Amino acid sequence: MGGDNAPDMVVEGMEMSLDKHPGTRFLLFGDEQRLTPLLGRHARVAAVTEIRHTPDSVKNADKAAQALRSGRNSSMRLAINAVKDGEADGIVSAGNTGALMAMAKFVLKTLPGIDRPAIATYVPTKTGQSLMLDLGANIECDSENLVQFAVMGEVFARQVRGLEYPSVGILNVGAEDLKGKKSVKDAAAVLQETDLPIKFYGFIEGDDIAAGTVDVVVTDGFTGNIALKTAEGTAKLFGGFLKDSLTSSPISMLGALLAKPALNRLKMRMDPRRYNGAMLLGLNGICVKSHGGTDGLGFSNAIGVTADLITTSVNDSIKADYARLHVDSTPERLEQKAT
Amino acid sequence: MGGDNAPDMVVEGMEMSLDKHPGTRFLLFGDEQRLTPLLGRHARVAAVTEIRHTPDSVKNADKAAQALRSGRNSSMRLAINAVKDGEADGIVSAGNTGALMAMAKFVLKTLPGIDRPAIATYVPTKTGQSLMLDLGANIECDSENLVQFAVMGEVFARQVRGLEYPSVGILNVGAEDLKGKKSVKDAAAVLQETDLPIKFYGFIEGDDIAAGTVDVVVTDGFTGNIALKTAEGTAKLFGGFLKDSLTSSPISMLGALLAKPALNRLKMRMDPRRYNGAMLLGLNGICVKSHGGTDGLGFSNAIGVTADLITTSVNDSIKADYARLHVDSTPERLEQKAT
Repeated sequence: MGGDNAPDMVVEGMEMSLDKHPGTRFLLFGDEQRLTPLLGRHARVAAVTEIRHTPDSVKNADKAAQALRSGRNSSMRLAINAVKDGEADGIVSAGNTGALMAMAKFVLKTLPGIDRPAIATYVPTKTGQSLMLDLGANIECDSENLVQFAVMGEVFARQVRGLEYPSVGILNVGAEDLKGKKSVKDAAAVLQETDLPIKFYGFIEGDDIAAGTVDVVVTDGFTGNIALKTAEGTAKLFGGFLKDSLTSSPISMLGALLAKPALNRLKMRMDPRRYNGAMLLGLNGICVKSHGGTDGLGFSNAIGVTADLITTSVNDSIKADYARLHVDSTPERLEQKAT
Repeated sequence: MGGDNAPDMVVEGMEMSLDKHPGTRFLLFGDEQRLTPLLGRHARVAAVTEIRHTPDSVKNADKAAQALRSGRNSSMRLAINAVKDGEADGIVSAGNTGALMAMAKFVLKTLPGIDRPAIATYVPTKTGQSLMLDLGANIECDSENLVQFAVMGEVFARQVRGLEYPSVGILNVGAEDLKGKKSVKDAAAVLQETDLPIKFYGFIEGDDIAAGTVDVVVTDGFTGNIALKTAEGTAKLFGGFLKDSLTSSPISMLGALLAKPALNRLKMRMDPRRYNGAMLLGLNGICVKSHGGTDGLGFSNAIGVTADLITTSVNDSIKADYARLHVDSTPERLEQKAT
C-alpha cells in the first residue's frame, strides 16, 4: 500500500517482474477491496499471488517510532512478519523508509556482528554500475560502522553482481591518507590491515562515484544521502538543459528528431527507475525499499533486486565473512598485532 | 606559479579578464625568467602588470604546515603579504588549496566574529546559480560554524550578486525539522530565531542544490566537498553518455550536427570553467582559489570573482552583519531569551 501510486503501480510492477523472474510467487499485503479488482486485470499475477487482507497501512507522514508502536496490523508490518516467519523469502515496499527500517530491524534483527543495517543502492557509472552505502539509515557513523558497510558491500558485489574481486573505496575529501575525518581514517586503517579478501582501494572523492573508480562506495548515511540526491538533481538539471537546448530552434528540433533513438538510449541509461530498489543490508532477512514516487517499471526493478538477493543467499555470505573479519581486524586486535 | 598549466594559463586569463574588468592592475608573483617572456606576448597585460620576482613556489604535494613554515618567500606567500600590506586589494591563486588556506588565515586573519573561513563557490542551477559553502576548508563543523557560513553566504549573495533578499538553506537528509545531525538542527534553530534580515528557508536536500531551491546552500566542508565533486562527476558522466549516444549511428551524428549550436549552448551552461573561482570567505582580505586544472578562460573567471569581491566591499558587510548576529543570537543569548 506504500508509494505515491500504490497499489496500482505495485501490481503493474509485479506483472512486469514476471518476465524476468517467472518463478516468483507473491504475498500481497493490504486492502483487499482495492487489491482484488487490480488482480482481476492482471491474470498472470493473480495466478501466483495470495492477498493478505489488512485495512491498516503506515502513512508517509508517520514517524518511525509511532509506526512501530501502533502499526502492528499494518500491511508493512505483516509483510515483514511473513519474512520472519519464513512464509516469504523477502519483502519489497515503496512505503515510509523510516518506518520500514525501524520495523524491519525490530522484527528481523541484524546479522551477527552487524550493529546497524545500511541502505545500499546501485548508482550508474561510466563503466556500468557501482554499489553505494549507506544512503541514510545511519546519520552518524563511527569507523566500525563503516568497516561493516565495506564488508557487506563487498560480499554483495561478489555474490549478487558476480564480481570475482570487487574493489571497495571510502568516500572522502581527498585521496591522500592524511585527509578527512577521524572515522574514515580509522576505517581505512582497519580495511588496509584486514586478512579478508577485500580489495580495498583506499579513499575516493565525489567525482569517483560516477567515474566508476570502485565497485563499492562506502560512506556514512548523511553524506551518502546528500551525494546520491545531489547526483540525481544534477542529472535532472542536465536533462532539462538538454531539452531546452534541443527545442531552442527549428533546426535543433530537426536534429533532435534524427537523434531521437540515440537520445532515448541516453535517457534509458540515466533513468532512475533502472536503479530503483534500495537494499537494507545487514538485516537478518531480505528487505528492499522502492522509491515512493516510482511507477510499475521502477517497482518491477525493485522486485528484481529482491529476487537477486534471495537467490544469491547474500546474507549467509555476509554472516560468514563478517565473522572472519570480526576475529581478525577489530581495533583491539590491530593493536595486539602492532605490539 | 600555481596550477597545472601555470604560469601560461594565468597570463592568458589576465588577458581575457581585461575585457570584462578593464581597470584591473596586476602584481604578478613568480619566476621572472618565465613571466617576462609571457608578458612579452601579452602587451595589454604587460601595460598594467608589475612582476615581483621570487624563485620559490609552493608545490602541489606540499603539506599546508610545511608550506607555512618554509614557504616565506614563495610566490603564494608574497602575494598574500601584498594584500595584508594594502598593496593589492585581493589575491587569486590556482595553487595548493591547503597551503593557500593556511597562509591566508595566518597572514590575513579572520573577520571579527568568524572562527573559520569557508570555501564558497557558485553552482549551476535550473534558475541560474546559487552560492554553496563550505566546500572543504572545515571537515568537521559545529552549529556555530554553520551559522557563520549562513551569514557570510547571505551577505555575499546580497552584496555581490545583488539579490535583495536571498534565501538560505542548510543541507540535510530530509526537509523535516527532526531529521539530521545535531549540528544542522542547532544551526537551524539559531537561524530561525535570528533578528537579522536572513530569509532562512530551513533544510534542503541534495537535489535542491541543482533545482535552485535557495540562493545560498550551507553545509560542512566534508559534505560540501563531496556533494560538489559528485555533481561534477555526474555532469561529466551525462556528457559522456550524450556523446556516446550521438555518435552511435550516422543518423544520430547528422542529428547532432544540426543540433550543434544548441548542444554547444548546453556545454557552455554546464562548463565548469564558468563556475571557476572559489572564495575564501571570512578572511580579513579578499582571497580566491582557482581550480588547478583550469585554462585561461577558467582563470579569467576566477579573476572576475576576485574583482567582484573587491568592488562590492563584501567583507565590510559581513563584519557589520555578523557583529549584529553575534549580539542577538548566540546559543547563550537564545537561552536567555527562552528563560
